[in-house]
Amino acid sequence: MYDIIIIGAGAAGMNAALYAGRGGMKTLVIEKLSCGGQAVKTYEIDNYLGFSDNPTGLELASAMEKHAKKFGAEFTAENVREIRNADQPVKTVVTRKNEYQTKSIIFATGASPKKLGIEGEDKFFGSGISYCATCDGAFFKGYDVVVIGGGNTACEDALYLANFCENVYLLNRSKRFRAAATILDKVKANPKITIYTDIVAESFEGNISLERVIVKNTATGERGFINAAGAIIAIGITPESQLAKSCGVETCELGFIKTDIYMKTNIDGIYSAGDVRTTPLRQVITAAADGAVAATSAVNYVNEMN
Amino acid sequence: MYDIIIIGAGAAGMNAALYAGRGGMKTLVIEKLSCGGQAVKTYEIDNYLGFSDNPTGLELASAMEKHAKKFGAEFTAENVREIRNADQPVKTVVTRKNEYQTKSIIFATGASPKKLGIEGEDKFFGSGISYCATCDGAFFKGYDVVVIGGGNTACEDALYLANFCENVYLLNRSKRFRAAATILDKVKANPKITIYTDIVAESFEGNISLERVIVKNTATGERGFINAAGAIIAIGITPESQLAKSCGVETCELGFIKTDIYMKTNIDGIYSAGDVRTTPLRQVITAAADGAVAATSAVNYVNEMN
Repeated sequence: MYDIIIIGAGAAGMNAALYAGRGGMKTLVIEKLSCGGQAVKTYEIDNYLGFSDNPTGLELASAMEKHAKKFGAEFTAENVREIRNADQPVKTVVTRKNEYQTKSIIFATGASPKKLGIEGEDKFFGSGISYCATCDGAFFKGYDVVVIGGGNTACEDALYLANFCENVYLLNRSKRFRAAATILDKVKANPKITIYTDIVAESFEGNISLERVIVKNTATGERGFINAAGAIIAIGITPESQLAKSCGVETCELGFIKTDIYMKTNIDGIYSAGDVRTTPLRQVITAAADGAVAATSAVNYVNEMN
Repeated sequence: MYDIIIIGAGAAGMNAALYAGRGGMKTLVIEKLSCGGQAVKTYEIDNYLGFSDNPTGLELASAMEKHAKKFGAEFTAENVREIRNADQPVKTVVTRKNEYQTKSIIFATGASPKKLGIEGEDKFFGSGISYCATCDGAFFKGYDVVVIGGGNTACEDALYLANFCENVYLLNRSKRFRAAATILDKVKANPKITIYTDIVAESFEGNISLERVIVKNTATGERGFINAAGAIIAIGITPESQLAKSCGVETCELGFIKTDIYMKTNIDGIYSAGDVRTTPLRQVITAAADGAVAATSAVNYVNEMN
């Protein structure tokens, strides 16, 4: 019988493991891949406070993994298939090989950015292409960048990049923006931002890093290109919340897990942390903080349950 | 004219500086002491994810300071005396020597634990005495500890420590506990916890580190002692929120600054981050995450204001 089972070992799950282990809980972390989550896929992370020497995502994740394993939490590489008795004091986490009993669960299953699925997108990921302006925008300081998307995030990203990039090109596939009118007006008024509507990216080109975006006008079929050192793709994020949903955990309309400020979900003893939950900012540091809060709440829950 | 002025340079203020500077904002950090906040006063920090080699608080703070200064934020050592026009688009931050104009402000002024004010309290701080069980409790694994206080935090701390300490002695100065009945019942039922009521700590004794707590019965005047390697003092926290309050920022009844999940206060363009705000957990990692969120919100605010 475990006190806490953490599903997912990105920054949120690893820090939950640290806090749960340090709090004397019998803790199991179940991760289907290797530790590190989104961070591992990131070439360079220069905004995790304290690591000022631009570690690679893998270096940062390794440092975190070493730390997360220091306080006794067990780690296993398995794929969770089902959760039984989620609303009972003793819950069962089912993997292909095992069934684990636990008093509490933390969903730290993460989220992944939606992809365009076009040529060059994977090739230039980390060398020009990014899915997060707050994470990677600063690498394009002084250069021309393209932002792809038409929602609030895309518009905020365009304004953000306009603060330090040379030119920002905002590409929207239709004439209609999903973004709020107030923010869209600011984008339109910003002299550094050029808006292209009815335009889709067809492919990304370059040598070692991104050099240009091949675009197509959806109305006329005309093709062209935009020279740019960076492209921020801001067309949405998909949360890994199917497992949580299937056992009754409430999500928002976009599928992110709803929590209160203690990271508690609608079900007693079930918590969530990191990118998979509804949160105003998805960064390594905010995911890690969520993990600390979720684990502390779970520790208190288990202590008061015993 | 600054885009963002950050008041306080603990983990919250430093990470706000990192995110604001990286976002291309003209940023000023005003700190009356040196950078690092509460962390600097801490001997050893082993729960800031990624730093697994038990850095001293000063080492961790130095790594953070180096990082926070990397993206162009200016730092000045001054004491803020007043904020004028807090509710206007251009706000004025007044120090003894200067007046700074800014579009937004982040209060990251921190909080400090309440002290007992008794002999040995300062001497053994960091070598037995702590004000935070989640921070330092793990250092007392396998030892006897004393918890001083009668509120929810003291009771949660006692339960937390009982998970891995040998014996936990909970000292309350009166018979009445402020803690909720549900959690107090769990404390009473825990075989590792002994409750002493009508008992105050008079002094702390030991050689290099804490060895015993001298106690007095407030009803009988009788004196005694409890052998313990650790003492967690959980009698409350005082937020540094006077400045924020004086310019109209709303606080809770305990004086902590109220924010929404974007770290926004009740005043447009004013944000708060870290220990000074109402938050479920006060740790270095949560303060740092708050700083990222507050700065990102301020960046968006300034971008949409321009």
